[in-house]
Amino acid sequence: MPYTYETDGAAIYEQSFRTIRAEADLARFPADEEQVAVRMIHAAGMVGLEQFIRFSPGVVAAARDALTAGAPILCDARMVSEGVTRPRLPADNDIICTLHDDGVRDLAARMGNTRSAAALELWRDRLEGAVVAIGNAPTALFHLLNMLEDPGCPRPAAIIGCPVGFVGAVESKDALWQAQPVPSIIVEGRLGGSAITVAAINAIASRAE
Amino acid sequence: MPYTYETDGAAIYEQSFRTIRAEADLARFPADEEQVAVRMIHAAGMVGLEQFIRFSPGVVAAARDALTAGAPILCDARMVSEGVTRPRLPADNDIICTLHDDGVRDLAARMGNTRSAAALELWRDRLEGAVVAIGNAPTALFHLLNMLEDPGCPRPAAIIGCPVGFVGAVESKDALWQAQPVPSIIVEGRLGGSAITVAAINAIASRAE
Repeated sequence: MPYTYETDGAAIYEQSFRTIRAEADLARFPADEEQVAVRMIHAAGMVGLEQFIRFSPGVVAAARDALTAGAPILCDARMVSEGVTRPRLPADNDIICTLHDDGVRDLAARMGNTRSAAALELWRDRLEGAVVAIGNAPTALFHLLNMLEDPGCPRPAAIIGCPVGFVGAVESKDALWQAQPVPSIIVEGRLGGSAITVAAINAIASRAE
Repeated sequence: MPYTYETDGAAIYEQSFRTIRAEADLARFPADEEQVAVRMIHAAGMVGLEQFIRFSPGVVAAARDALTAGAPILCDARMVSEGVTRPRLPADNDIICTLHDDGVRDLAARMGNTRSAAALELWRDRLEGAVVAIGNAPTALFHLLNMLEDPGCPRPAAIIGCPVGFVGAVESKDALWQAQPVPSIIVEGRLGGSAITVAAINAIASRAE
């Protein structure tokens, strides 16, 4: 006896978002942030995530404007870059992950840092006005913050800073939130990860639900 | 003033796993399952996930033996296939995601199902003895269960069934757990996703921590 289930993708999205809006506490979010928060909750499968999501004022507009103007999306991990839904992008934007580029392993050894952090050195010529999506490595977010301590470093338009885990995730997101070198989105605490980060990008890329 | 943080990847893993073992309730898991559960908690950034993880008896050994014998890993999404750490694999195993293959969109339309479900039809000639990793789409897991209702369908060695979300995730994982056509790992409830699924695969692929 075959299993029966909802097979229409649009209906699945519609029902999912309706459930989230019925259950989650979204009252504090303006409309543009609410759409992003709903997708982040959807990706996590977790009502309650909303209490940890923080938006800098204007970050959704800043990131959306950057994408509309053709800015690249710079990602710390392939799980982030592969998750972005290309047809949602407003300008066929480049999606860049340098983690596996030639020389990153050697560079990491010379820097005494992780490959995730070293890979960001290869972002410099694309960083100005970009949308940064860090969904995996706290060391990448910390290294970005250190790069941006240099006033000569190019400035991204926005940072989605949602690394996950037990060592450095809390601290790196707190540091981003305190410093706010550019408008940012974080998930406070240990939670985060590539799916939540991708969801924020996909929501910013298009208002379509 | 630059931020200082742990930059040694091995130390980050070690400290993360130590924290998880100190905080999580892992007593019910045999050693091989405990290693998998710890990595799943790590990927989620969430102590407490362990209460939702279910292992069929022998599933870790079955999946590990399959990988050692060279079985492919069949993934429902690119975020899963891209997350698997290649150097951990015991036999340079193929990692396959057919979601973006030619013809999947048309096949989905003909089937009246999602692309995620239709993509599994392209798994048939690699399914026998494979390790299946479903970390995104409930429709993929439901369609796999329907394929396996046919006694003539090839049998995978194990199913990691951790789709996430609000429509069909709970139901498809419950259905897998009731049917257990082959040994399986699930995360009960809405939680799941590509990172958790990848973590299970990476833990099964190698005992190294």
